[in-house]
Amino acid sequence: MSLAEAISRLQPELKRFEPGHVWLAGAGPGDRGSITLDVISALSQADAVVYDALVDPSVLSAAREDAEQHFVGKRGGQESARQDDITALLVHLARKNKRVLRLKGGDPYIFGRGGEEALALAQAGIPFRIMPGVTSAFGALANAGIPATMRGLNKAVILATGHAAGTEEDLDWAALAKTGQPIVVYMGLKNLEKIAAALLAGGLAASTPVAIIMAATTPNERVLVSTLSAVAEEAKAAGFISPALIVVGDIVSMRAELLGALPASKSA
Amino acid sequence: MSLAEAISRLQPELKRFEPGHVWLAGAGPGDRGSITLDVISALSQADAVVYDALVDPSVLSAAREDAEQHFVGKRGGQESARQDDITALLVHLARKNKRVLRLKGGDPYIFGRGGEEALALAQAGIPFRIMPGVTSAFGALANAGIPATMRGLNKAVILATGHAAGTEEDLDWAALAKTGQPIVVYMGLKNLEKIAAALLAGGLAASTPVAIIMAATTPNERVLVSTLSAVAEEAKAAGFISPALIVVGDIVSMRAELLGALPASKSA
Repeated sequence: MSLAEAISRLQPELKRFEPGHVWLAGAGPGDRGSITLDVISALSQADAVVYDALVDPSVLSAAREDAEQHFVGKRGGQESARQDDITALLVHLARKNKRVLRLKGGDPYIFGRGGEEALALAQAGIPFRIMPGVTSAFGALANAGIPATMRGLNKAVILATGHAAGTEEDLDWAALAKTGQPIVVYMGLKNLEKIAAALLAGGLAASTPVAIIMAATTPNERVLVSTLSAVAEEAKAAGFISPALIVVGDIVSMRAELLGALPASKSA
Repeated sequence: MSLAEAISRLQPELKRFEPGHVWLAGAGPGDRGSITLDVISALSQADAVVYDALVDPSVLSAAREDAEQHFVGKRGGQESARQDDITALLVHLARKNKRVLRLKGGDPYIFGRGGEEALALAQAGIPFRIMPGVTSAFGALANAGIPATMRGLNKAVILATGHAAGTEEDLDWAALAKTGQPIVVYMGLKNLEKIAAALLAGGLAASTPVAIIMAATTPNERVLVSTLSAVAEEAKAAGFISPALIVVGDIVSMRAELLGALPASKSA
Protein backbone atom coordinates (compact mmCIF):
# COMPACT_ATOMS: atom_id res chain seq x y z
CA MET A 1 0.00 0.00 0.00
CA SER A 2 1.31 3.47 -0.82
CA LEU A 3 1.80 6.16 1.80
CA ALA A 4 -0.90 8.29 0.17
CA GLU A 5 -3.36 5.41 0.34
CA ALA A 6 -2.48 4.72 3.97
CA ILE A 7 -3.10 8.36 4.85
CA SER A 8 -6.39 8.45 3.00
CA ARG A 9 -7.51 5.35 4.89
CA LEU A 10 -6.40 6.89 8.17
CA GLN A 11 -8.82 9.80 7.58
CA PRO A 12 -7.11 12.18 9.98
CA GLU A 13 -9.36 15.01 11.13
CA LEU A 14 -7.07 17.82 10.14
CA LYS A 15 -7.53 21.22 11.68
CA ARG A 16 -8.69 24.11 9.56
CA PHE A 17 -6.28 27.02 9.61
CA GLU A 18 -8.32 30.21 10.06
CA PRO A 19 -7.07 33.57 8.73
CA GLY A 20 -5.65 35.73 11.49
CA HIS A 21 -4.56 32.74 13.56
CA VAL A 22 -1.01 31.67 14.45
CA TRP A 23 0.06 28.04 14.83
CA LEU A 24 3.29 27.36 16.72
CA ALA A 25 4.48 24.05 15.35
CA GLY A 26 7.39 21.67 15.84
CA ALA A 27 9.06 20.00 12.86
CA GLY A 28 10.74 17.33 15.00
CA PRO A 29 14.40 16.40 15.23
CA GLY A 30 15.41 16.77 11.61
CA ASP A 31 14.47 14.26 8.97
CA ARG A 32 11.23 14.78 7.07
CA GLY A 33 9.88 11.37 8.07
CA SER A 34 9.47 12.50 11.65
CA ILE A 35 7.11 15.35 10.79
CA THR A 36 3.50 14.91 11.88
CA LEU A 37 0.47 15.05 9.61
CA ASP A 38 -0.79 18.12 11.49
CA VAL A 39 2.37 20.04 10.69
CA ILE A 40 2.35 19.08 7.01
CA SER A 41 -1.28 20.11 6.86
CA ALA A 42 -0.35 23.41 8.50
CA LEU A 43 2.36 23.98 5.89
CA SER A 44 -0.10 23.28 3.09
CA GLN A 45 -2.55 25.89 4.40
CA ALA A 46 -0.33 28.69 5.71
CA ASP A 47 -0.19 32.13 4.08
CA ALA A 48 3.06 32.92 5.89
CA VAL A 49 5.75 30.69 7.38
CA VAL A 50 8.12 32.10 10.00
CA TYR A 51 10.92 29.59 10.54
CA ASP A 52 14.28 29.26 12.21
CA ALA A 53 17.59 27.68 11.29
CA LEU A 54 16.98 24.37 12.99
CA VAL A 55 14.42 23.23 10.47
CA ASP A 56 15.55 21.17 7.48
CA PRO A 57 14.89 23.74 4.73
CA SER A 58 13.44 21.09 2.44
CA VAL A 59 10.47 20.94 4.82
CA LEU A 60 9.38 24.22 3.27
CA SER A 61 8.70 22.45 -0.01
CA ALA A 62 5.38 21.42 1.54
CA ALA A 63 4.36 25.07 1.85
CA ARG A 64 2.20 26.81 -0.76
CA GLU A 65 4.22 28.46 -3.51
CA ASP A 66 2.54 31.80 -2.83
CA ALA A 67 3.17 31.64 0.92
CA GLU A 68 5.45 34.30 2.40
CA GLN A 69 8.60 32.85 3.95
CA HIS A 70 10.30 34.67 6.82
CA PHE A 71 13.62 33.31 8.05
CA VAL A 72 14.35 34.39 11.63
CA GLY A 73 17.15 32.03 12.72
CA LYS A 74 20.90 32.22 12.81
CA ARG A 75 22.74 31.71 9.53
CA GLY A 76 26.50 31.64 9.24
CA GLY A 77 27.95 34.23 11.56
CA GLN A 78 24.75 36.28 11.52
CA GLU A 79 22.75 36.98 14.64
CA SER A 80 19.28 35.51 14.77
CA ALA A 81 16.37 37.91 14.85
CA ARG A 82 15.65 39.31 18.31
CA GLN A 83 12.83 37.55 20.14
CA ASP A 84 10.86 40.81 20.39
CA ASP A 85 11.10 41.25 16.64
CA ILE A 86 9.88 37.70 16.03
CA THR A 87 6.83 38.09 18.22
CA ALA A 88 6.13 41.50 16.64
CA LEU A 89 6.31 39.88 13.19
CA LEU A 90 3.86 37.13 14.22
CA VAL A 91 1.39 39.70 15.58
CA HIS A 92 1.81 41.91 12.50
CA LEU A 93 1.16 39.05 10.07
CA ALA A 94 -1.85 37.79 12.06
CA ARG A 95 -3.33 41.30 12.12
CA LYS A 96 -3.02 41.36 8.34
CA ASN A 97 -5.41 38.38 8.55
CA LYS A 98 -2.87 35.83 7.40
CA ARG A 99 -2.68 32.19 8.47
CA VAL A 100 0.70 32.32 10.20
CA LEU A 101 2.77 29.21 10.76
CA ARG A 102 5.65 29.60 13.22
CA LEU A 103 7.80 26.57 12.52
CA LYS A 104 10.56 25.46 14.85
CA GLY A 105 12.83 22.43 15.08
CA GLY A 106 11.86 19.82 17.66
CA ASP A 107 8.94 20.85 19.85
CA PRO A 108 8.04 24.54 20.24
CA TYR A 109 7.52 24.18 24.01
CA ILE A 110 10.84 22.42 24.78
CA PHE A 111 13.52 25.12 25.07
CA GLY A 112 12.11 26.62 21.88
CA ARG A 113 10.86 29.90 23.40
CA GLY A 114 7.41 28.90 22.20
CA GLY A 115 6.01 29.81 25.61
CA GLU A 116 7.14 33.39 25.20
CA GLU A 117 5.70 33.62 21.72
CA ALA A 118 2.40 32.11 22.88
CA LEU A 119 2.22 34.58 25.74
CA ALA A 120 2.85 37.53 23.43
CA LEU A 121 0.09 36.29 21.10
CA ALA A 122 -2.32 35.80 24.02
CA GLN A 123 -1.61 39.30 25.26
CA ALA A 124 -2.20 40.72 21.79
CA GLY A 125 -5.50 38.82 21.54
CA ILE A 126 -4.32 36.71 18.59
CA PRO A 127 -5.80 33.18 18.52
CA PHE A 128 -3.11 30.53 18.43
CA ARG A 129 -2.59 26.81 18.65
CA ILE A 130 0.40 24.69 19.68
CA MET A 131 1.37 21.70 17.51
CA PRO A 132 3.94 19.56 19.26
CA GLY A 133 6.69 17.85 17.32
CA VAL A 134 8.85 14.87 18.17
CA THR A 135 11.12 16.18 20.96
CA SER A 136 14.60 16.75 19.47
CA ALA A 137 16.39 15.16 22.40
CA PHE A 138 14.32 11.99 22.34
CA GLY A 139 14.67 11.67 18.58
CA ALA A 140 18.42 12.11 18.91
CA LEU A 141 18.74 9.55 21.70
CA ALA A 142 16.67 6.96 19.84
CA ASN A 143 18.75 7.44 16.73
CA ALA A 144 21.96 7.10 18.70
CA GLY A 145 20.82 3.83 20.28
CA ILE A 146 20.19 5.21 23.77
CA PRO A 147 16.83 4.57 25.44
CA ALA A 148 15.70 7.64 27.42
CA THR A 149 14.18 5.36 30.04
CA MET A 150 15.11 1.77 30.87
CA ARG A 151 13.39 -0.33 33.50
CA GLY A 152 15.88 -1.08 36.25
CA LEU A 153 18.06 1.92 35.39
CA ASN A 154 15.87 5.01 35.75
CA LYS A 155 12.37 6.12 36.70
CA ALA A 156 12.79 9.70 35.53
CA VAL A 157 14.66 11.65 32.90
CA ILE A 158 15.67 15.30 33.06
CA LEU A 159 15.83 17.65 30.08
CA ALA A 160 17.94 20.71 30.81
CA THR A 161 19.43 23.64 28.96
CA GLY A 162 23.11 24.36 29.32
CA HIS A 163 23.21 27.79 27.71
CA ALA A 164 23.37 29.65 31.02
CA ALA A 165 26.00 27.41 32.63
CA GLY A 166 28.43 29.43 34.68
CA THR A 167 26.22 32.54 34.82
CA GLU A 168 24.07 33.86 37.67
CA GLU A 169 20.99 32.40 36.03
CA ASP A 170 22.47 28.92 35.96
CA LEU A 171 20.66 25.76 36.91
CA ASP A 172 21.48 24.01 40.16
CA TRP A 173 23.43 21.16 38.54
CA ALA A 174 24.33 19.66 41.92
CA ALA A 175 20.62 19.26 42.71
CA LEU A 176 20.08 17.60 39.33
CA ALA A 177 23.03 15.28 40.02
CA LYS A 178 21.59 14.27 43.40
CA THR A 179 18.40 12.92 41.79
CA GLY A 180 20.45 10.03 40.40
CA GLN A 181 18.44 10.30 37.17
CA PRO A 182 19.84 10.74 33.65
CA ILE A 183 20.24 14.30 32.41
CA VAL A 184 19.95 15.33 28.77
CA VAL A 185 21.42 18.75 28.11
CA TYR A 186 20.47 20.98 25.19
CA MET A 187 22.79 23.80 24.11
CA GLY A 188 25.49 22.75 26.52
CA LEU A 189 28.54 21.88 24.42
CA LYS A 190 30.33 25.20 24.76
CA ASN A 191 29.85 24.97 28.54
CA LEU A 192 30.62 21.24 28.74
CA GLU A 193 33.61 21.67 31.04
CA LYS A 194 31.62 23.77 33.52
CA ILE A 195 28.62 21.44 33.42
CA ALA A 196 30.71 18.30 33.94
CA ALA A 197 32.54 19.96 36.84
CA ALA A 198 29.26 21.02 38.46
CA LEU A 199 27.81 17.51 38.14
CA LEU A 200 30.98 15.99 39.62
CA ALA A 201 30.80 18.50 42.46
CA GLY A 202 27.18 17.44 42.94
CA GLY A 203 28.28 13.90 43.64
CA LEU A 204 28.12 12.06 40.32
CA ALA A 205 30.93 9.54 39.90
CA ALA A 206 33.83 10.37 37.58
CA SER A 207 33.02 7.14 35.73
CA THR A 208 29.41 8.14 34.97
CA PRO A 209 28.84 7.40 31.26
CA VAL A 210 28.34 10.45 29.04
CA ALA A 211 27.46 10.61 25.36
CA ILE A 212 27.77 13.63 23.09
CA ILE A 213 25.52 13.52 20.03
CA MET A 214 26.49 16.05 17.40
CA ALA A 215 24.26 16.95 14.41
CA ALA A 216 21.71 14.40 15.61
CA THR A 217 19.66 12.54 12.98
CA THR A 218 21.51 14.21 10.09
CA PRO A 219 24.00 12.52 7.77
CA ASN A 220 26.73 14.33 9.74
CA GLU A 221 25.73 12.77 13.05
CA ARG A 222 28.63 11.82 15.33
CA VAL A 223 28.41 10.17 18.72
CA LEU A 224 31.16 10.19 21.35
CA VAL A 225 30.87 7.98 24.43
CA SER A 226 33.05 8.88 27.38
CA THR A 227 32.87 9.48 31.12
CA LEU A 228 32.00 12.55 33.14
CA SER A 229 35.61 13.21 34.08
CA ALA A 230 37.03 12.76 30.58
CA VAL A 231 34.30 13.97 28.24
CA ALA A 232 35.16 17.67 28.01
CA GLU A 233 38.69 16.99 26.88
CA GLU A 234 37.71 14.15 24.55
CA ALA A 235 34.93 16.13 22.88
CA LYS A 236 37.37 18.97 22.25
CA ALA A 237 40.04 16.63 20.91
CA ALA A 238 37.52 14.95 18.63
CA GLY A 239 36.43 18.30 17.21
CA PHE A 240 32.81 18.17 18.33
CA ILE A 241 30.93 21.40 17.67
CA SER A 242 27.44 22.76 18.36
CA PRO A 243 24.65 21.90 18.00
CA ALA A 244 25.17 18.85 20.17
CA LEU A 245 23.29 17.08 22.92
CA ILE A 246 24.93 15.88 26.13
CA VAL A 247 23.55 12.73 27.75
CA VAL A 248 24.67 11.89 31.28
CA GLY A 249 23.82 8.66 33.09
CA ASP A 250 23.72 4.88 32.97
CA ILE A 251 21.27 4.85 30.05
CA VAL A 252 24.30 5.69 27.87
CA SER A 253 25.77 2.26 28.64
CA MET A 254 22.76 0.62 26.98
CA ARG A 255 24.07 1.81 23.63
CA ALA A 256 26.81 -0.79 23.47
CA GLU A 257 24.36 -3.54 24.36
CA LEU A 258 21.78 -2.41 21.82
CA LEU A 259 24.18 -1.72 18.98
CA GLY A 260 26.87 -4.21 19.96
CA ALA A 261 24.56 -7.14 19.53
CA LEU A 262 24.06 -6.08 15.95
CA PRO A 263 27.46 -5.31 14.47
CA ALA A 264 26.07 -5.18 10.96
CA SER A 265 23.11 -2.98 11.79
CA LYS A 266 22.13 0.04 13.80
CA SER A 267 19.13 0.74 15.98
CA ALA A 268 18.00 3.57 13.73
CA MET B 1 -3.03 22.59 -1.55
CA SER B 2 -4.20 19.18 -0.41
CA LEU B 3 -2.37 17.18 2.23
CA ALA B 4 -1.51 14.50 -0.33
CA GLU B 5 0.00 17.12 -2.63
CA ALA B 6 1.97 18.65 0.23
CA ILE B 7 3.38 15.24 1.14
CA SER B 8 4.28 14.45 -2.44
CA ARG B 9 6.13 17.77 -2.68
CA LEU B 10 7.90 17.07 0.60
CA GLN B 11 9.37 13.89 -0.90
CA PRO B 12 10.18 12.26 2.43
CA GLU B 13 12.81 9.55 2.14
CA LEU B 14 10.80 6.81 3.75
CA LYS B 15 12.55 3.78 5.15
CA ARG B 16 12.10 0.42 3.53
CA PHE B 17 10.77 -2.17 5.94
CA GLU B 18 12.79 -5.40 5.44
CA PRO B 19 11.27 -8.80 6.18
CA GLY B 20 12.48 -10.20 9.49
CA HIS B 21 12.98 -6.73 11.00
CA VAL B 22 11.11 -5.17 13.93
CA TRP B 23 10.30 -1.46 14.19
CA LEU B 24 9.41 -0.08 17.61
CA ALA B 25 7.30 2.96 16.87
CA GLY B 26 5.43 5.65 18.78
CA ALA B 27 1.98 6.77 17.69
CA GLY B 28 2.12 9.98 19.72
CA PRO B 29 -0.29 11.28 22.33
CA GLY B 30 -3.58 10.23 20.76
CA ASP B 31 -5.08 12.02 17.80
CA ARG B 32 -4.19 10.81 14.33
CA GLY B 33 -2.88 14.22 13.28
CA SER B 34 0.12 13.85 15.58
CA ILE B 35 1.37 10.67 13.91
CA THR B 36 4.58 11.00 11.91
CA LEU B 37 5.02 10.11 8.26
CA ASP B 38 7.53 7.39 9.23
CA VAL B 39 4.98 5.64 11.41
CA ILE B 40 2.24 5.80 8.78
CA SER B 41 4.70 4.42 6.26
CA ALA B 42 5.57 1.63 8.73
CA LEU B 43 1.87 0.79 9.11
CA SER B 44 1.45 0.64 5.34
CA GLN B 45 4.34 -1.84 4.99
CA ALA B 46 4.03 -4.09 8.06
CA ASP B 47 3.06 -7.76 7.83
CA ALA B 48 2.24 -7.85 11.55
CA VAL B 49 1.28 -5.10 13.99
CA VAL B 50 1.69 -5.69 17.73
CA TYR B 51 -0.08 -2.88 19.58
CA ASP B 52 -1.18 -1.88 23.03
CA ALA B 53 -4.26 -0.21 24.50
CA LEU B 54 -2.92 3.32 24.44
CA VAL B 55 -3.12 3.67 20.70
CA ASP B 56 -6.25 5.12 19.10
CA PRO B 57 -7.54 1.95 17.39
CA SER B 58 -8.46 3.91 14.25
CA VAL B 59 -4.73 4.29 13.64
CA LEU B 60 -4.77 0.67 12.53
CA SER B 61 -6.88 1.61 9.51
CA ALA B 62 -3.58 2.64 7.90
CA ALA B 63 -2.31 -0.95 8.14
CA ARG B 64 -2.59 -3.39 5.25
CA GLU B 65 -5.81 -5.40 5.27
CA ASP B 66 -3.86 -8.66 5.22
CA ALA B 67 -1.57 -7.65 8.11
CA GLU B 68 -1.79 -9.70 11.29
CA GLN B 69 -2.95 -7.64 14.27
CA HIS B 70 -1.86 -8.65 17.78
CA PHE B 71 -3.37 -6.76 20.69
CA VAL B 72 -1.16 -6.97 23.79
CA GLY B 73 -2.49 -4.17 26.02
CA LYS B 74 -4.98 -4.00 28.84
CA ARG B 75 -8.65 -4.04 27.88
CA GLY B 76 -11.46 -3.70 30.39
CA GLY B 77 -10.50 -5.54 33.56
CA GLN B 78 -8.16 -7.88 31.67
CA GLU B 79 -4.48 -8.04 32.42
CA SER B 80 -2.16 -6.92 29.68
CA ALA B 81 0.11 -9.51 28.13
CA ARG B 82 3.25 -10.20 30.16
CA GLN B 83 6.33 -8.37 28.95
CA ASP B 84 8.16 -11.66 28.36
CA ASP B 85 5.30 -12.86 26.18
CA ILE B 86 5.37 -9.66 24.15
CA THR B 87 9.10 -9.87 23.45
CA ALA B 88 8.74 -13.59 22.63
CA LEU B 89 5.97 -12.72 20.17
CA LEU B 90 8.14 -10.06 18.49
CA VAL B 91 11.03 -12.50 18.13
CA HIS B 92 8.74 -15.27 16.88
CA LEU B 93 7.15 -13.07 14.20
CA ALA B 94 10.51 -11.72 13.05
CA ARG B 95 11.91 -15.25 12.77
CA LYS B 96 8.96 -16.07 10.53
CA ASN B 97 10.47 -13.37 8.31
CA LYS B 98 7.67 -10.89 8.84
CA ARG B 99 7.96 -7.12 8.90
CA VAL B 100 6.91 -6.55 12.52
CA LEU B 101 5.63 -3.19 13.73
CA ARG B 102 5.47 -2.79 17.50
CA LEU B 103 3.20 0.21 17.94
CA LYS B 104 2.90 2.05 21.26
CA GLY B 105 1.24 5.24 22.39
CA GLY B 106 3.50 8.25 22.83
CA ASP B 107 7.17 7.43 22.35
CA PRO B 108 8.45 3.85 22.77
CA TYR B 109 11.50 4.95 24.78
CA ILE B 110 9.63 7.15 27.31
CA PHE B 111 8.26 4.85 30.01
CA GLY B 112 7.04 2.57 27.23
CA ARG B 113 9.31 -0.40 28.04
CA GLY B 114 10.70 -0.04 24.53
CA GLY B 115 14.21 -0.32 25.93
CA GLU B 116 13.48 -3.79 27.26
CA GLU B 117 11.98 -4.87 23.97
CA ALA B 118 14.92 -3.47 22.02
CA LEU B 119 17.36 -5.28 24.29
CA ALA B 120 15.54 -8.59 23.87
CA LEU B 121 15.62 -8.13 20.09
CA ALA B 122 19.33 -7.25 20.13
CA GLN B 123 20.09 -10.33 22.21
CA ALA B 124 18.09 -12.49 19.80
CA GLY B 125 19.98 -11.03 16.85
CA ILE B 126 16.85 -9.48 15.31
CA PRO B 127 17.48 -6.22 13.44
CA PHE B 128 15.34 -3.41 14.80
CA ARG B 129 14.76 0.31 14.49
CA ILE B 130 13.28 2.87 16.89
CA MET B 131 10.76 5.40 15.53
CA PRO B 132 10.07 8.11 18.07
CA GLY B 133 6.61 9.61 18.43
CA VAL B 134 5.48 12.89 19.90
CA THR B 135 6.06 12.43 23.66
CA SER B 136 2.67 11.89 25.32
CA ALA B 137 3.42 14.23 28.20
CA PHE B 138 4.49 17.09 25.98
CA GLY B 139 1.48 16.65 23.69
CA ALA B 140 -0.78 16.63 26.74
CA LEU B 141 0.78 19.75 28.23
CA ALA B 142 0.60 21.67 24.96
CA ASN B 143 -3.03 20.73 24.53
CA ALA B 144 -3.82 21.79 28.08
CA GLY B 145 -2.21 25.20 27.57
CA ILE B 146 0.88 24.56 29.71
CA PRO B 147 4.34 25.22 28.23
CA ALA B 148 6.82 22.56 29.38
CA THR B 149 9.55 25.19 29.49
CA MET B 150 9.16 28.93 29.93
CA ARG B 151 12.04 31.38 29.97
CA GLY B 152 12.27 32.93 33.42
CA LEU B 153 10.44 30.03 35.08
CA ASN B 154 12.50 26.92 34.37
CA LYS B 155 15.69 25.71 32.72
CA ALA B 156 14.89 22.00 33.02
CA VAL B 157 11.87 19.74 33.07
CA ILE B 158 11.65 16.31 34.68
CA LEU B 159 9.60 13.40 33.35
CA ALA B 160 8.98 10.78 36.03
CA THR B 161 6.90 7.69 36.52
CA GLY B 162 4.70 7.41 39.59
CA HIS B 163 3.80 3.76 39.33
CA ALA B 164 6.26 2.64 42.02
CA ALA B 165 5.43 5.40 44.52
CA GLY B 166 5.45 4.11 48.06
CA THR B 167 7.36 0.92 47.19
CA GLU B 168 11.00 0.05 47.79
CA GLU B 169 11.77 0.81 44.17
CA ASP B 170 10.39 4.33 44.44
CA LEU B 171 12.01 7.43 43.05
CA ASP B 172 13.64 9.91 45.42
CA TRP B 173 10.87 12.52 45.17
CA ALA B 174 12.58 14.77 47.69
CA ALA B 175 15.64 14.99 45.43
CA LEU B 176 13.40 15.83 42.47
CA ALA B 177 11.67 18.52 44.57
CA LYS B 178 15.00 20.09 45.54
CA THR B 179 15.89 20.76 41.88
CA GLY B 180 13.20 23.46 41.84
CA GLN B 181 12.28 22.33 38.31
CA PRO B 182 8.80 21.26 37.11
CA ILE B 183 7.96 17.57 37.36
CA VAL B 184 5.61 15.78 34.99
CA VAL B 185 4.46 12.43 36.37
CA TYR B 186 3.20 9.56 34.23
CA MET B 187 1.09 6.81 35.81
CA GLY B 188 0.89 8.60 39.12
CA LEU B 189 -2.80 9.28 39.75
CA LYS B 190 -3.45 6.30 42.01
CA ASN B 191 -0.42 7.29 44.08
CA LEU B 192 -1.13 11.02 43.97
CA GLU B 193 -1.47 11.38 47.74
CA LYS B 194 1.90 9.68 48.37
CA ILE B 195 3.65 11.64 45.61
CA ALA B 196 2.30 15.00 46.81
CA ALA B 197 3.30 14.17 50.39
CA ALA B 198 6.82 13.18 49.30
CA LEU B 199 7.25 16.39 47.28
CA LEU B 200 6.02 18.50 50.23
CA ALA B 201 8.43 16.64 52.50
CA GLY B 202 11.16 17.42 49.97
CA GLY B 203 10.57 21.12 50.45
CA LEU B 204 8.12 22.18 47.76
CA ALA B 205 5.65 24.82 48.99
CA ALA B 206 2.08 23.76 49.74
CA SER B 207 0.98 26.44 47.26
CA THR B 208 2.99 24.98 44.35
CA PRO B 209 0.63 24.85 41.35
CA VAL B 210 -0.37 21.37 40.19
CA ALA B 211 -2.43 20.33 37.19
CA ILE B 212 -3.99 16.94 36.57
CA ILE B 213 -4.69 16.19 32.92
CA MET B 214 -7.02 13.24 32.42
CA ALA B 215 -7.58 11.51 29.06
CA ALA B 216 -5.22 14.02 27.45
CA THR B 217 -5.89 15.08 23.84
CA THR B 218 -9.09 12.99 23.65
CA PRO B 219 -12.65 14.39 23.58
CA ASN B 220 -12.91 13.29 27.25
CA GLU B 221 -9.96 15.43 28.34
CA ARG B 222 -10.38 17.12 31.72
CA VAL B 223 -7.92 19.44 33.43
CA LEU B 224 -7.89 20.24 37.14
CA VAL B 225 -5.67 23.01 38.47
CA SER B 226 -4.93 22.97 42.17
CA THR B 227 -2.05 23.17 44.64
CA LEU B 228 0.30 20.55 45.97
CA SER B 229 -1.43 20.43 49.36
CA ALA B 230 -4.98 20.26 47.99
CA VAL B 231 -4.68 18.32 44.74
CA ALA B 232 -5.09 14.75 46.01
CA GLU B 233 -8.40 15.51 47.69
CA GLU B 234 -9.67 17.69 44.84
CA ALA B 235 -8.82 15.14 42.15
CA LYS B 236 -10.67 12.47 44.11
CA ALA B 237 -13.68 14.71 44.67
CA ALA B 238 -13.78 15.62 40.99
CA GLY B 239 -13.75 11.95 39.98
CA PHE B 240 -10.46 11.99 38.08
CA ILE B 241 -9.37 8.52 36.98
CA SER B 242 -6.34 7.02 35.18
CA PRO B 243 -4.78 7.51 32.73
CA ALA B 244 -3.84 10.98 33.89
CA LEU B 245 -0.74 13.12 33.95
CA ILE B 246 0.36 15.14 36.98
CA VAL B 247 2.19 18.43 36.36
CA VAL B 248 3.90 20.10 39.32
CA GLY B 249 5.47 23.55 39.17
CA ASP B 250 5.12 27.18 38.22
CA ILE B 251 4.67 26.36 34.52
CA VAL B 252 1.11 25.36 35.48
CA SER B 253 0.34 28.97 36.32
CA MET B 254 1.03 29.95 32.69
CA ARG B 255 -2.18 28.17 31.69
CA ALA B 256 -4.42 30.95 33.02
CA GLU B 257 -2.35 33.58 31.23
CA LEU B 258 -2.32 31.70 27.95
CA LEU B 259 -5.95 30.63 27.96
CA GLY B 260 -7.30 33.52 30.06
CA ALA B 261 -6.28 36.08 27.49
CA LEU B 262 -8.46 34.28 24.98
CA PRO B 263 -11.79 33.54 26.65
CA ALA B 264 -13.39 32.53 23.38
CA SER B 265 -10.54 30.32 22.25
CA LYS B 266 -8.11 27.71 23.49
CA SER B 267 -4.42 27.22 22.86
CA ALA B 268 -5.08 23.87 21.26
